[in-house]
Amino acid sequence: MAKQEDVFKKVISHAKEYGFIFPSSEIYDGLSAVYDYGQNGAELKNNIKQYWWKAMVQLNENIVGIDSAILMHPTTWKASGHVDAFNDPLIDNKDSKKRFRADVLVEDYCAKIEDKENKEIEKAAKRFGESFDKEQFVATNPKVLEYRAKREVILSRLAKSLENEDLADVKALIEELEIADPDTGSKNWTEVRQFNLMFGTKLGASADSAMDLYLRPETAQGIFVNFLNVQKTSRHRLPFGIAQIGKAFRNEIVARQFIFRMREFEQMEMQFFVAPGTELEFYEQWKQKRLNWHLALGLGDENYRFHDHEKLAHYANAAADIEFNFPFGFKELEGIHSRTDFDLKAHEEFSGRKLQFFDPERNENYVPYVVETSVGLDRLFLSIFSHCLKDEVLEDGSERTVLSLPPALAPIKAAILPLMKKDGLAEYAEKIFNDLKYDFNLFYEEKDAIGKRYRRQDAIGTPYCITIDHDSLTDHTVTIRDRDTMQQERVPVSELRRIIDEKTSFRNLLSKI
Amino acid sequence: MAKQEDVFKKVISHAKEYGFIFPSSEIYDGLSAVYDYGQNGAELKNNIKQYWWKAMVQLNENIVGIDSAILMHPTTWKASGHVDAFNDPLIDNKDSKKRFRADVLVEDYCAKIEDKENKEIEKAAKRFGESFDKEQFVATNPKVLEYRAKREVILSRLAKSLENEDLADVKALIEELEIADPDTGSKNWTEVRQFNLMFGTKLGASADSAMDLYLRPETAQGIFVNFLNVQKTSRHRLPFGIAQIGKAFRNEIVARQFIFRMREFEQMEMQFFVAPGTELEFYEQWKQKRLNWHLALGLGDENYRFHDHEKLAHYANAAADIEFNFPFGFKELEGIHSRTDFDLKAHEEFSGRKLQFFDPERNENYVPYVVETSVGLDRLFLSIFSHCLKDEVLEDGSERTVLSLPPALAPIKAAILPLMKKDGLAEYAEKIFNDLKYDFNLFYEEKDAIGKRYRRQDAIGTPYCITIDHDSLTDHTVTIRDRDTMQQERVPVSELRRIIDEKTSFRNLLSKI
Repeated sequence: MAKQEDVFKKVISHAKEYGFIFPSSEIYDGLSAVYDYGQNGAELKNNIKQYWWKAMVQLNENIVGIDSAILMHPTTWKASGHVDAFNDPLIDNKDSKKRFRADVLVEDYCAKIEDKENKEIEKAAKRFGESFDKEQFVATNPKVLEYRAKREVILSRLAKSLENEDLADVKALIEELEIADPDTGSKNWTEVRQFNLMFGTKLGASADSAMDLYLRPETAQGIFVNFLNVQKTSRHRLPFGIAQIGKAFRNEIVARQFIFRMREFEQMEMQFFVAPGTELEFYEQWKQKRLNWHLALGLGDENYRFHDHEKLAHYANAAADIEFNFPFGFKELEGIHSRTDFDLKAHEEFSGRKLQFFDPERNENYVPYVVETSVGLDRLFLSIFSHCLKDEVLEDGSERTVLSLPPALAPIKAAILPLMKKDGLAEYAEKIFNDLKYDFNLFYEEKDAIGKRYRRQDAIGTPYCITIDHDSLTDHTVTIRDRDTMQQERVPVSELRRIIDEKTSFRNLLSKI
Repeated sequence: MAKQEDVFKKVISHAKEYGFIFPSSEIYDGLSAVYDYGQNGAELKNNIKQYWWKAMVQLNENIVGIDSAILMHPTTWKASGHVDAFNDPLIDNKDSKKRFRADVLVEDYCAKIEDKENKEIEKAAKRFGESFDKEQFVATNPKVLEYRAKREVILSRLAKSLENEDLADVKALIEELEIADPDTGSKNWTEVRQFNLMFGTKLGASADSAMDLYLRPETAQGIFVNFLNVQKTSRHRLPFGIAQIGKAFRNEIVARQFIFRMREFEQMEMQFFVAPGTELEFYEQWKQKRLNWHLALGLGDENYRFHDHEKLAHYANAAADIEFNFPFGFKELEGIHSRTDFDLKAHEEFSGRKLQFFDPERNENYVPYVVETSVGLDRLFLSIFSHCLKDEVLEDGSERTVLSLPPALAPIKAAILPLMKKDGLAEYAEKIFNDLKYDFNLFYEEKDAIGKRYRRQDAIGTPYCITIDHDSLTDHTVTIRDRDTMQQERVPVSELRRIIDEKTSFRNLLSKI
């Protein structure tokens, strides 16, 4: 098994074992691609949300936050294009009755060709040793050239068929390539059909007029339909932004990689409304601002990179991803999109209402242009959690697992640990707990050896362990142990609030952006 | 129009005009009984959530919080009883094609009788003046007695029919009373049928095996199915609690009273797991604790009351509501329920997994009993918002609208207002904004007369307005205006952080519980 896979397995099992993430409805054998956040996961997720909200809404005088409903008027999704075009091409195997994404079947076929290609290259590298010139080999070896050409032909035909919505040709391609159901080997396929990714439901119970609704597949449209209400009641002029955190739902056929791609997930989106013609300047600004927000977490600048889109969606005139180095490689974490006036114009058309701003400087009405920043909260959680989870070998040869979360995001800020329950230590510890509990989320534990208790706090990312011993009763000092250095220091009880606040405050992150 | 209705209309229009609550998808003429929270509403709602979460999770060492998904395995709802019994009795009018709640039609009929009864009493009160003895009149007047008797007969028959699921008799009752469609007058009714209130959807796209799912109608079941995962990974012993805030959905036929009863709403629930036999003691404790939590908001003790349930749900052995004095009268705000071991036992049965706790003191395994506290976040929002909204006549005869929110809940903690933009006042104000923005959600505004700007902040509940004038530039003092007293005080800029923190910190609420 590859090392990356080991790391990812450890991430998933640690997340469950320490109360971060459980499979949804696990007692009923779970619900595919849906997860629940446990007691530590809920706190970590809330803290990530707060970091985003504070950075976007609180630090920017011209950004406000809203909270729109998951259920929206269905015409919203006609206007946005989701009813007509938010599809995956699916194909059923008639024998196994299993359904697949037709494009993924073809892509997987090509991935197998690529595997063969890589094996040829590896073989040659082994044979030639240090003198191996990979570039030259790839450019001249007939087998490799043949594999490459074959892949190219297949993938470009697939792309063209999908673009032209020629689903019959996608099926023809699958049959020509003799692609079989990977589980059963059957090649008995149905036609390829488009399948909409939105979850549907019905509102109301009036016999004739139950309304077909969708669970929103993105939060952005909740911002667009509220644009004018927010602009007018907040009295903001352009440029200004509307931010939102909320659930979205996609009926993914292939949902995998733990919480990276879920059917129920959470987005943190901000739409920045600007004057036409100024959008690319703000697009560049937001790319940089959002990258800085990620970098302030301190997970290592080398783990982030931009991926500028060459092929743009029909509504965009610029788009880039911020990618993160996940345990399974660099993948999209956040998207920054210059969406032009596409969405607001579409809602104007479908609603018959003007969604315009009167610009006193230009002395004209216009539909604003939009620059969007959109980050997946769950994959952000995964990026932070997986990066911070470390197995360390200590100087004495023993091992520990530590979750080195940015302290502002840690579920528990400090654990209050009386060395033992008796002799009044527990009572003294309770006093400290009660004194600090209004300011920090604390944990209290009086059982087990202190070393064991430290390890458990390391494993959930608690920055500080505060130990109360017999001396505490007389000199009113305690030891405070740092999660990362494992150094212990004796400090006056009266200093605890200041010390914990200094290290765990959101200021530490926000002031770095 | 009654005064209460005026107050409620003002609440709804103020909520929209000042960016608290907008009808969902308003540009598409809205979605019935679904609302969006605007820029000030989202902040107020977030602050209410934080107050609850801090009070429940942070202040109690034996309560943890989770965040489970809206989509759950469908067997969850078989076990909980929602698939079979979460119904409303509905009836269609064949002419108008409109659907009604059969029980509400009968109740509305009785309400009309009650109106007549009240008119008799009012008439008599007028005639007899001060000598009127209401009690005696009601006990002896033949008309009043007749009305009362009639109502009683109807309502007790309705209750009995519903209890016995004798829907044919509910229809018979409607026909005997000659109840007509209130809009069209038609008495041409269908049979009465049970209609399940859960929203349905389908997961996955496999031809044969798409799974019927529900949008959760309550968050509690997400806690029950995770009970063992949380208990084991948090290592808590009984008694301990699991708290959760999240969306729930009910396909209400009659959804009304603004955000009081919505189809998409948010709950804040806590399940406290206890040893069998101790549940009623904890039930009493939680009743009192939850009331104290509400009272700490300072909206007036007289606006809250308990309503102990006499008729209990089949799973409960004690239940009470905390009711609040809404603009439309005392209504349920929160429920406290002693749910016995009903839910966990049902999940044991349907999942085949043991959901038990080994009690080292009793040296036995058992299914814990549960005491639940369940508050509707949106109606809590409405209780606070409607109570705090006041029209005041000032000493000089002018009027103002002020939203006297508890400062910790206010969307904006302080507005930074340079008296004018020029002369460097705006720059100085920006400096103050930048210095305080890491600690508080602030608002900045430099346009319009200062009095107008104060009024706008009063209307959204901002506790402090900080005005920068020419003196500020030289003596580094500003005026700070208190929302409630409207008193202004000159203070050093260096004192602002302390002053704002003292008044707006959650400590003020939490320490009162």
